[in-house]
Amino acid sequence: MSRISNSTVRRLSIYLRQLESVREEGRENVLSAELAERSAVKATQMRKDLSFFGSFGRRGIGYSVPALIEQIRLILGLDRVWSAVLFGAGSLGHALAGYHGFEPHNIRITAIADVDPGRIGKTISGITVENAADAAAIRARTNAQIAVLAVPATAAQDLADKVVAAGFSGIVNFAPVRLILPASIALYSVDLAVAFEQVTYKLKDLKPPVPSPKS
Amino acid sequence: MSRISNSTVRRLSIYLRQLESVREEGRENVLSAELAERSAVKATQMRKDLSFFGSFGRRGIGYSVPALIEQIRLILGLDRVWSAVLFGAGSLGHALAGYHGFEPHNIRITAIADVDPGRIGKTISGITVENAADAAAIRARTNAQIAVLAVPATAAQDLADKVVAAGFSGIVNFAPVRLILPASIALYSVDLAVAFEQVTYKLKDLKPPVPSPKS
Repeated sequence: MSRISNSTVRRLSIYLRQLESVREEGRENVLSAELAERSAVKATQMRKDLSFFGSFGRRGIGYSVPALIEQIRLILGLDRVWSAVLFGAGSLGHALAGYHGFEPHNIRITAIADVDPGRIGKTISGITVENAADAAAIRARTNAQIAVLAVPATAAQDLADKVVAAGFSGIVNFAPVRLILPASIALYSVDLAVAFEQVTYKLKDLKPPVPSPKS
Repeated sequence: MSRISNSTVRRLSIYLRQLESVREEGRENVLSAELAERSAVKATQMRKDLSFFGSFGRRGIGYSVPALIEQIRLILGLDRVWSAVLFGAGSLGHALAGYHGFEPHNIRITAIADVDPGRIGKTISGITVENAADAAAIRARTNAQIAVLAVPATAAQDLADKVVAAGFSGIVNFAPVRLILPASIALYSVDLAVAFEQVTYKLKDLKPPVPSPKS
């Protein structure tokens, strides 16, 4: 399945964000040096990534923004709408259900489920929380391939096994735990500490901030 | 500051996770092929990344797990504890305040602030929510360099300008919006849709799941 590396897929997502931002500015073309800089990727790396997909900027004009957006969306599978079922109706579940960054990328949370009887039947962002024990029926009804795990670390492996048994083929896992799953399952674990480490790396050689003047 | 690319920093975080997981299994060494496979990175790429920092596995024995953990933690700045102030006490703020994936990586949320009078004074994960208008005083008291933005997209740029003025030098942004900030600020924007795109890429060539038998 994965003909290109995870790192490359990730960079394609980032190029796509920046291309969409250029499009919002009303521009039709972007020079490769600018797109690389906005993406915080080396220009040579970016040109290599894109040439692999047959996309070559034109000297002096650069890349066609709408054409490159369409091409990357196709590679990432974003030319269709993806239905995802969210498991876990706690604070992270609430945050994900209300997150406005999914719609532009054709990802729709179509159902929410939990094991807690105190949460089942409640409504989050217009969706009624169902019983996670009904995972197979929920998947069939929503035609979802992706299960989103927003549960505590201690509950994640057990839930992951259940959603695999229920027929989900992709899992986006937010629990800080390494899941063991069949190789046929497309798994991506979000580690929120990774984001912080991109910042601590840059800050570590900086002097501490100057203390504020006494007020 | 950034002598190595963002992609490399990100891969170092991933190697670190996998090394910690190997250590939890009670092992002292790991072969480079295994570490690369667990990290879902090409072995040649991983060896290149690590040799850049002077770390070479020994033939047949591989890398020393504790030595490589210590070295990567040093590179990422995780040999010290980082204090971070969380701005935004909504559902995402609650989720981040209760997230258990930060402690092992020396990141501590030491204060929480919001602009909403209805939220100020409430307690989240043992921390009393303060007024975001007091950002400079909160930063000075907590000795925090990192501000975490867990606010709606429409509020993020204004808040980012305020935390920069308050003396924060690093920002981890969860709002789905591109922030414009001085180049001296270490900024990382978390885009939750990127995680999904790693999964949709892998799923796009799969056949849809087989419908469940009628029950």
